[in-house]
Amino acid sequence: MRANRAASIILAVSFQTLQSPLCFLQSTLSDFRLPDWLQQYQCWLEKEGQDISDHTDRVGAPPLGMFDLSGTRVDEILYSPEYWRMLKHGYQAGLIWRVCEENAVFPAALGIYVTSFYDPGLACPYTVSLSTLVPLSKYGDAELKERFLPRLLQKDEAVWQGATWMTEIKGGSDLGATVETMARPAGTQWLLTGDKYFASNAGANLAVVAARPEGGARNVRGLALFLVPRYGRNGQLNYSIRRLKDKIATHSVPTGEVELRDSEAWLLGRAEDGIYLILEVLNVSRVANSMGSVGLAQRAMADAAAFAQGRVVFGKPLIEQPLMRRQFEDRLRQLQAASKLAWKAVVLLNEVWQERPPYSDRYHLFRLVAHLAKYWTAEVAVQTAKWAMEVHGGMGTLHEYRAERWLREAMILAIWEGPAHRQILDGLEVMERKHAHRLLFQSLAATVDASSLQQMEARVEQHLALPREEKEAGAEALFTDLARFTADALLQAEE
Amino acid sequence: MRANRAASIILAVSFQTLQSPLCFLQSTLSDFRLPDWLQQYQCWLEKEGQDISDHTDRVGAPPLGMFDLSGTRVDEILYSPEYWRMLKHGYQAGLIWRVCEENAVFPAALGIYVTSFYDPGLACPYTVSLSTLVPLSKYGDAELKERFLPRLLQKDEAVWQGATWMTEIKGGSDLGATVETMARPAGTQWLLTGDKYFASNAGANLAVVAARPEGGARNVRGLALFLVPRYGRNGQLNYSIRRLKDKIATHSVPTGEVELRDSEAWLLGRAEDGIYLILEVLNVSRVANSMGSVGLAQRAMADAAAFAQGRVVFGKPLIEQPLMRRQFEDRLRQLQAASKLAWKAVVLLNEVWQERPPYSDRYHLFRLVAHLAKYWTAEVAVQTAKWAMEVHGGMGTLHEYRAERWLREAMILAIWEGPAHRQILDGLEVMERKHAHRLLFQSLAATVDASSLQQMEARVEQHLALPREEKEAGAEALFTDLARFTADALLQAEE
Amino acid sequence: MRANRAASIILAVSFQTLQSPLCFLQSTLSDFRLPDWLQQYQCWLEKEGQDISDHTDRVGAPPLGMFDLSGTRVDEILYSPEYWRMLKHGYQAGLIWRVCEENAVFPAALGIYVTSFYDPGLACPYTVSLSTLVPLSKYGDAELKERFLPRLLQKDEAVWQGATWMTEIKGGSDLGATVETMARPAGTQWLLTGDKYFASNAGANLAVVAARPEGGARNVRGLALFLVPRYGRNGQLNYSIRRLKDKIATHSVPTGEVELRDSEAWLLGRAEDGIYLILEVLNVSRVANSMGSVGLAQRAMADAAAFAQGRVVFGKPLIEQPLMRRQFEDRLRQLQAASKLAWKAVVLLNEVWQERPPYSDRYHLFRLVAHLAKYWTAEVAVQTAKWAMEVHGGMGTLHEYRAERWLREAMILAIWEGPAHRQILDGLEVMERKHAHRLLFQSLAATVDASSLQQMEARVEQHLALPREEKEAGAEALFTDLARFTADALLQAEE
Amino acid sequence: MRANRAASIILAVSFQTLQSPLCFLQSTLSDFRLPDWLQQYQCWLEKEGQDISDHTDRVGAPPLGMFDLSGTRVDEILYSPEYWRMLKHGYQAGLIWRVCEENAVFPAALGIYVTSFYDPGLACPYTVSLSTLVPLSKYGDAELKERFLPRLLQKDEAVWQGATWMTEIKGGSDLGATVETMARPAGTQWLLTGDKYFASNAGANLAVVAARPEGGARNVRGLALFLVPRYGRNGQLNYSIRRLKDKIATHSVPTGEVELRDSEAWLLGRAEDGIYLILEVLNVSRVANSMGSVGLAQRAMADAAAFAQGRVVFGKPLIEQPLMRRQFEDRLRQLQAASKLAWKAVVLLNEVWQERPPYSDRYHLFRLVAHLAKYWTAEVAVQTAKWAMEVHGGMGTLHEYRAERWLREAMILAIWEGPAHRQILDGLEVMERKHAHRLLFQSLAATVDASSLQQMEARVEQHLALPREEKEAGAEALFTDLARFTADALLQAEE
Repeated sequence: MRANRAASIILAVSFQTLQSPLCFLQSTLSDFRLPDWLQQYQCWLEKEGQDISDHTDRVGAPPLGMFDLSGTRVDEILYSPEYWRMLKHGYQAGLIWRVCEENAVFPAALGIYVTSFYDPGLACPYTVSLSTLVPLSKYGDAELKERFLPRLLQKDEAVWQGATWMTEIKGGSDLGATVETMARPAGTQWLLTGDKYFASNAGANLAVVAARPEGGARNVRGLALFLVPRYGRNGQLNYSIRRLKDKIATHSVPTGEVELRDSEAWLLGRAEDGIYLILEVLNVSRVANSMGSVGLAQRAMADAAAFAQGRVVFGKPLIEQPLMRRQFEDRLRQLQAASKLAWKAVVLLNEVWQERPPYSDRYHLFRLVAHLAKYWTAEVAVQTAKWAMEVHGGMGTLHEYRAERWLREAMILAIWEGPAHRQILDGLEVMERKHAHRLLFQSLAATVDASSLQQMEARVEQHLALPREEKEAGAEALFTDLARFTADALLQAEE
Repeated sequence: MRANRAASIILAVSFQTLQSPLCFLQSTLSDFRLPDWLQQYQCWLEKEGQDISDHTDRVGAPPLGMFDLSGTRVDEILYSPEYWRMLKHGYQAGLIWRVCEENAVFPAALGIYVTSFYDPGLACPYTVSLSTLVPLSKYGDAELKERFLPRLLQKDEAVWQGATWMTEIKGGSDLGATVETMARPAGTQWLLTGDKYFASNAGANLAVVAARPEGGARNVRGLALFLVPRYGRNGQLNYSIRRLKDKIATHSVPTGEVELRDSEAWLLGRAEDGIYLILEVLNVSRVANSMGSVGLAQRAMADAAAFAQGRVVFGKPLIEQPLMRRQFEDRLRQLQAASKLAWKAVVLLNEVWQERPPYSDRYHLFRLVAHLAKYWTAEVAVQTAKWAMEVHGGMGTLHEYRAERWLREAMILAIWEGPAHRQILDGLEVMERKHAHRLLFQSLAATVDASSLQQMEARVEQHLALPREEKEAGAEALFTDLARFTADALLQAEE
Repeated sequence: MRANRAASIILAVSFQTLQSPLCFLQSTLSDFRLPDWLQQYQCWLEKEGQDISDHTDRVGAPPLGMFDLSGTRVDEILYSPEYWRMLKHGYQAGLIWRVCEENAVFPAALGIYVTSFYDPGLACPYTVSLSTLVPLSKYGDAELKERFLPRLLQKDEAVWQGATWMTEIKGGSDLGATVETMARPAGTQWLLTGDKYFASNAGANLAVVAARPEGGARNVRGLALFLVPRYGRNGQLNYSIRRLKDKIATHSVPTGEVELRDSEAWLLGRAEDGIYLILEVLNVSRVANSMGSVGLAQRAMADAAAFAQGRVVFGKPLIEQPLMRRQFEDRLRQLQAASKLAWKAVVLLNEVWQERPPYSDRYHLFRLVAHLAKYWTAEVAVQTAKWAMEVHGGMGTLHEYRAERWLREAMILAIWEGPAHRQILDGLEVMERKHAHRLLFQSLAATVDASSLQQMEARVEQHLALPREEKEAGAEALFTDLARFTADALLQAEE
Repeated sequence: MRANRAASIILAVSFQTLQSPLCFLQSTLSDFRLPDWLQQYQCWLEKEGQDISDHTDRVGAPPLGMFDLSGTRVDEILYSPEYWRMLKHGYQAGLIWRVCEENAVFPAALGIYVTSFYDPGLACPYTVSLSTLVPLSKYGDAELKERFLPRLLQKDEAVWQGATWMTEIKGGSDLGATVETMARPAGTQWLLTGDKYFASNAGANLAVVAARPEGGARNVRGLALFLVPRYGRNGQLNYSIRRLKDKIATHSVPTGEVELRDSEAWLLGRAEDGIYLILEVLNVSRVANSMGSVGLAQRAMADAAAFAQGRVVFGKPLIEQPLMRRQFEDRLRQLQAASKLAWKAVVLLNEVWQERPPYSDRYHLFRLVAHLAKYWTAEVAVQTAKWAMEVHGGMGTLHEYRAERWLREAMILAIWEGPAHRQILDGLEVMERKHAHRLLFQSLAATVDASSLQQMEARVEQHLALPREEKEAGAEALFTDLARFTADALLQAEE
């Protein structure tokens, strides 16, 4: 019976629906009401943004104009002018300012979904701008908010972009050990010195930066979160971009190595809460990444469907071959389930994003779902994109067409904000220490039959009772099954 | 108990072993005796070839020098000089000429394995040279062999390269419908006119080319196989390269679009056997591709191991974290099993490569194993490379390092010579029509316990009895399980 | 006293003036009235076009999308979307349609001047569209004009572009010998087959093409001029682009190798007048090239001036160092004189552009001046750009800045439409055979003192009386002096 | 009669001779004896080096590997392996070590000439290695020489390369004002901190570096010359490469921006003589640049000759057209004269290179000739390369062929080591302050007729008597004429 219901959904979500991110969301999320601005935003991307995105991907990492002709360091990122037009378009449409105006994360989450269908890399500037806006508005004092908030919320071209710079050369998982950027107090401000190795949206007007106040412990407790503007109060560059990185994808966001040298900064919140603020920032990004991954997976599948409809093999369209058709159906259902999981993370974030430590149980549930969603949606994006390339046959391996791009993009979505290994272990921790899985199962009780639920819960509890080594060693299968279970449960709730 | 035995194997095949293709083969294949020349070949690749390969990948598709300054069409492929040195090195080492001298395919298969560990794209020229040599030596008449064989077997720099050009713009799966290249007789020769869209090793001195003799049926029966040299008897270019393709990987083999315009050609074998000859060529390439895929998967895992040993997280090397360690162990075992499957395909090819239609049962078994191996080893290569990128974290997404390369390379190995969809359906056919699975199960009987074997066989037979639509639609899971079953069985045989 | 007058002019044409093409023209050409549209066009280029142009140059030759995913040949030139916006902007501003509306070549000539200050390559599409429009409107019959003229004159984005394709692989100087494209009649149309090796504005909607009607003589008399649209009457591509060429500059115009294969075409005028029509086309382009060269030379000097004002050496701005200052003054005067020469060519073209063979004396004077202007303005552009690079010192050698671009652009302006060698010999011929120099001296009589004029005239006549070999061998010095003399004379006329 | 003698020389130096740098030198320099090693070196470049050079130019600026996978800064320059093979070949052939062994600069000068014919950028590493060797061997104390000299003179692959880093971001002409790199004493060593903006041969093992000892005057007197090795005594990188520059040519030498941060250094000579040592280094480079420029000019002309012999226009080879032939003859004579001038600078350098301040009159003569030669040979190289491009017509504008490369290379030769503006003013100074022109005229007395000499001398003296402003302002014409006069005189001496 489930199979039949799935089949009917698949018929409803026809391949036409696949071609539009908003149609897909409408057909998948029952509670989704489509705002006008978002519809217009998608139209613009379809008509203009997409071609700009193609060109930006093709050209690759932009050059960095380090010095002007007078010998002044300028660190200007040399994208095509139209890149900036495309980038600013999303800000003007309201991906960020609407979050404040509506006091809800939905505008950003939906905007990022739509953006990622056309350009997953472009979703990053919006994500990190959101991740900058949130801690500033929560933890900034009145003066700081007055100074910077209006800039991030401007509705015209002069809008400021945010950025979140944590990772240093020794790695991003174990920040407590690897962050070597030091902060020393200087009046009401701080001066930061250190190198950030993966600085997304390098060149942003305002970054939130993890650093260690002088004398701070050499672990995560010693870290604090700071605001660093691009230009100091003297009008000079407040940080340098050592170079832009030559990534395999997400060419629509400049990722750089950033050098802080006595860079002016403001402390956000209390230094001793630093690690909480840092994790809040990362959690926002993980949810955004989940929406982006699903948008990208939809795109890869949409392109594969279009190709398979046009390509004739043994007398009929490839898509009508039984094996190919089955693959489409299975993957479409998987995509719908993954969308529900990502959306669940969005809904939970929206509930808890204003919380401060100490957090409620609801926040811990959110954390678990965020880990599940980050992990699983990225996995779905990678596998869908890989399969979509194969559907294209040889054409899938050529830069001339789009298919190979989606796999490159997906691999980055799978890695940044922490790869599977990290999500699994952090998810494990929130189950062990906060019993977040119990909250999860409670929340699913209404929609899943009791025996399945009980079986899954028993399996999780049993696993958590294993000795540490064994528990970690075997966590992948558990986490994968839990993600799939949750996603399927959420999808069934609709059916 | 199996787990324990596996663990002991894993200890035997330590991470050191991973770093050398030949050590890995020695530890995995019980019947493998390492020839001196192959050891030297690996040393050369390690010491010199590898850096050349890195550079070749970095630079990407070479430019094509179409005209010299006098306006004469020359179609010169502008690799760096050292590329040619690297390429010729493999021929001189004997990847091809030893096949004739030893009357066995092992030198090529092993050489391709080693090559792919360092440069999977470079394995292609050797593969297609082999795929040219085989039909020429089997089906060429005395004059043709005298004219061309010695060139392909030269042991010095003047050696000729082969190529296999089948696919045209409308796709490579359904050659009977998509090949539009026409052949018309001209004395003892033929003149070919048409465009080959994916011409691997474009620029080769001698290509085997699928074309349709005038008046031939518009299906596979109408196709024949021809030999086309680069220069015609008047010394002029006998085909043009329209352009070299901008592929995501395998930059060490020039893939081009080739224009045949009344190009001189020789028919191989009888025209009415054409499709058999074409499939023989493809089957040789599939086996080579399987060896290449395993070599590449080993390389991705070797690099991941090296990285995870050097990267410290939470106080100890990443590789010693329980979850990461488990992933390594599981994947290593999977890699070993896949190697056994690929090697089985090699051994079978070596038994049957001299057969001509009508084929023996042994040949049909070979075909099934070749499809299983092509499919499964490529899948393992892709998934291993994807996971190895994730192990590298952010560094895995940068062109500056090698990790992302292996995924790009793996995607091409998964697609050329037919993607999964093709292998599965062709594998299904040889089970349906030739009962090749029964031969397979017989051959595994000695090493697998009877009940598992019986269970698997029952499942296959049951599936083959399904109505056609359903049979094809559900073939992926069946084929995957059969591939895994066979690979594991072959691995157990060793243990 | 002349020196003093020159100095005062230089003061008037201050370095500020150098920064604006229209200010420079106003200060140099007494009879120049600045139209509003042109002012707006310059503003747009300054504000938007320039950055697009920088990006277009940086990215280099665009890729060519040869096939769409369905395997249909499309030959789509993959510029950034903004390139097309910039390109269309000039057409919409009226560089071409105003020529028809005002029945004068000035709008194109002035527009090309302004365009070249910002992007000399972008001037090419406008030039060749003009060179297509002119013969169509002069020699096309009513049906042909009705079919194509309105397309070239559209004022919106749907405007068609023209192109002029003469040169084949064996060279462009001796068209009579090197054009191998054949035309065979097919009803009221013709079918053309051949390869054009330097096809500027490849991808244009409508090209004028030199070809040899079947049976035509193997010399220039055997050539005729044809119109070839991009799409044939069946809606299919009417010519293929074999590849886009990797030029050192003029990246804002796609230059390709074009393959004509029974391409539909219309004959322009009478076949026996073909060579005259071809030369008319080239002469229009030469005049446009002259305006472009002067615009480019102004730009190189403007950038050098800006740099030399900002760079401090030995305590004062580089531009105030006496030797540097003198170089600026001398070169500024040379630039002004060259502008006058180019403008003279425009004015003469405007007088004679509607003439048909047999031509008036005025036409022959025009031809001489066009050769002098093409030659001399390009030489000035190259030498100015070379010097401007040197002014920038090391920064002049970096792709990061603009200085080196102007030299690359200038070298192309010097070569296409015939390099110095060609202009000199053709200029010599029109003096020998049509005594065009006498008409030139007459036209200068009012402004140059009689003795200089007489001296110059004597020298020319003496040279023309030399034996052929010697006359040609020594023609460079004569032609250079004549160009300088004419340019200086025209400049003095103003003073 | 002079014309006749010139013509006979031209016949002797046939176009065949143009194709070989050593044949050309033999035919031009009467006192030139060709060593075997040099002949072999040229053979190697012709057979192997040239293709490597083509590839290196095509690929452009190499990437810089900044960090290895463990996160350690490595600043590895990622050329193709064969680049290093080509580079090391010249060192092993003896371009540098023979200078010490023969106690003469000729091996370097001749080797640089030959190198530049094939790759003008490759001549740079040898030049700066020479410019490092000379001050080290002259001014280094015993310990320093023992430490470093043997490394620079090694005859195998382990040879060290030198480099000369003076210029900073504010410009290279006025070092006294623009060098901001500070040196502070640290025991017997110094620690340098500052940024070098144009660091040729970045990555060299040992660089001579201009810096200002703490407390030093803010002018040239405050500068000193230091030795800086790539690795410090602790084995760590002693300087960082911020980036490699994207130059238009000389891709065979990595030019970078170098960051010195408390980099270990040794003082060469006495700090108060610093500026003399710096100028000695520059003068050696200027002479090398002169030989390189002539080698390059020969190459451009050789390629033009080959093209013009192959291209048929109006029924005969382009080179046989009278105007083209005349151009070849004139330029060939100019090239020969320029070679004599460059060689004169070499011979003088060889006389004075061991001198220390205070210098002899002979040294001042050398300085004047070095300025004349640097200026004039570069000018000849640029103009020859520009003309050679034009000879190639459209093909001259394509990256596919070599013609355009020579102009790019020539522009760099014209600019580095000081552009024309600098050479002219410095040449003027040595005439004003040291009366070096009088020594020059004396040295030419034997070969030029007295009246020409007297006339030229009078003109120079008259010019030197002008008021300062006017003297500088008009110096270009004077210097050009003096350079031409000297070069022609030296050529006549042979005839």
